[in-house]
Amino acid sequence: MKIGIVTGIPGVGKTTVLSKVKEILEEKKINNRIVNYGDYMLMTAMKLGYVNNRDEMRKLPVEKQKQLQIEAAKGIANEAKEGGDGLLFIDTHAVIRTPSGYLPGLPKYVIEEINPRVIFLLEADPKVILDRQRRDTSRSRTDYSDEKIIFETINFARYAAMASAVLVGATVKIIINVEGDPSVAANEIINSML
Amino acid sequence: MKIGIVTGIPGVGKTTVLSKVKEILEEKKINNRIVNYGDYMLMTAMKLGYVNNRDEMRKLPVEKQKQLQIEAAKGIANEAKEGGDGLLFIDTHAVIRTPSGYLPGLPKYVIEEINPRVIFLLEADPKVILDRQRRDTSRSRTDYSDEKIIFETINFARYAAMASAVLVGATVKIIINVEGDPSVAANEIINSML
Amino acid sequence: MKIGIVTGIPGVGKTTVLSKVKEILEEKKINNRIVNYGDYMLMTAMKLGYVNNRDEMRKLPVEKQKQLQIEAAKGIANEAKEGGDGLLFIDTHAVIRTPSGYLPGLPKYVIEEINPRVIFLLEADPKVILDRQRRDTSRSRTDYSDEKIIFETINFARYAAMASAVLVGATVKIIINVEGDPSVAANEIINSML
Repeated sequence: MKIGIVTGIPGVGKTTVLSKVKEILEEKKINNRIVNYGDYMLMTAMKLGYVNNRDEMRKLPVEKQKQLQIEAAKGIANEAKEGGDGLLFIDTHAVIRTPSGYLPGLPKYVIEEINPRVIFLLEADPKVILDRQRRDTSRSRTDYSDEKIIFETINFARYAAMASAVLVGATVKIIINVEGDPSVAANEIINSML
Repeated sequence: MKIGIVTGIPGVGKTTVLSKVKEILEEKKINNRIVNYGDYMLMTAMKLGYVNNRDEMRKLPVEKQKQLQIEAAKGIANEAKEGGDGLLFIDTHAVIRTPSGYLPGLPKYVIEEINPRVIFLLEADPKVILDRQRRDTSRSRTDYSDEKIIFETINFARYAAMASAVLVGATVKIIINVEGDPSVAANEIINSML
Repeated sequence: MKIGIVTGIPGVGKTTVLSKVKEILEEKKINNRIVNYGDYMLMTAMKLGYVNNRDEMRKLPVEKQKQLQIEAAKGIANEAKEGGDGLLFIDTHAVIRTPSGYLPGLPKYVIEEINPRVIFLLEADPKVILDRQRRDTSRSRTDYSDEKIIFETINFARYAAMASAVLVGATVKIIINVEGDPSVAANEIINSML
């Protein structure tokens, strides 16, 4: 399977777009898999006996987290290799805004294992992202709380994605998630992989 | 020979500036070579029997293209090594805008072989680039068709060039190609290498 | 010791902020060390017998300078390793503006030796930086002489820092040095490391 990495900051509508991607690929009878990188890391951590639940993940020492990132990347790359034809999309971040700064979501030791064809940057107008965050009260997203910060995060995601792409020769594709119709972005993502 | 990589998006006037660079260096009796990376890859591919002409290049599988990129980079680095004193300039791109996104022109496996002194970003006002593209009807350049896209491409070229430079410790130098006199840019390029 | 790299362009107030960092950590009785990377390189060069004084550093061939960068990085990493608990900060640059272009201060062979937790970008309004440079007549800082250039340098520092961070999985944290109170920036730096 060809691998595409779909990144986007919280509130950009990544989950919705990727559901649409799956729907379209199923309709077209194209073999596909959507993998959430964070979930895959958790699953790997539980398998290895490092944690019993998601809350314990944050408490792991830095070196153990790094090891998990690598194991998860290897696992996904392996699924793609053994999955035959088709498309595998990884749902993750180009950067994560933390109290210690912008953390790259695709550092060297991860991107080199995954070796994707395309790194997608799902973007939207900061105003639109802010609105979506406000409506979605189920998740706490206080780290991305004003337009200037969202704009800065989108920019750092671009720098980080390009730096990761340079390591493996992948392309970086900006996809705008227009308000109201996730199928526009979904189709663009699919077409960029074919 | 010291190696400088000269990058710039289509329409910025790269070919003209590099002809001027050659002219000035010849006048000054400085040993020099200008290598077009794409042409060099094609020549390498033909030598290895992969293709018979330029059109067949695009149809090569991704892995074969990558191998050719590396072989070409090694070949050019070798020419510089055996070329004695002087300056060797490589004519290429920092990023290429493709339907699948921004493709880095100097990925890790290329930049590490070339190990250049300077990566030049030849830039111009997006309006000027657009005008030049319109006048030059001999080439199809539909991928860079409005000012916003040209501006975005110039920015991604900066991110990509800096990411490549970090891998080898090269400098990244912005050169503005002013309208009407390519010798200004040419002289700046030469002076940055001495 | 956990390592943080503090970068910032000339005139941003890096030295003052780092003195404040030291003062606060001493007060809190937290084990700490502040290392100036340039000074450490000079010391390394003198130890190895490459130079007798700072002026001779610039005249070293590129390959020797690179070797010194690596030796210095290893030395600092070793000090951190043997220094027990606490915080070690390195005072350096993300990019240096030279006549040959933007030189990355944290290239691959340096950042991989240091393997820091956080890369700090100390920033300030270009106007404020320009004012500080004008007042400080003791140092020649003609390379950063107008607002547009300062703005461009700050941006390239961001691209370079993120590219370095991607190589080792460090975070990149922007710290604004507000005029008149370096303790604001100093406390932010310390808190980002804990």
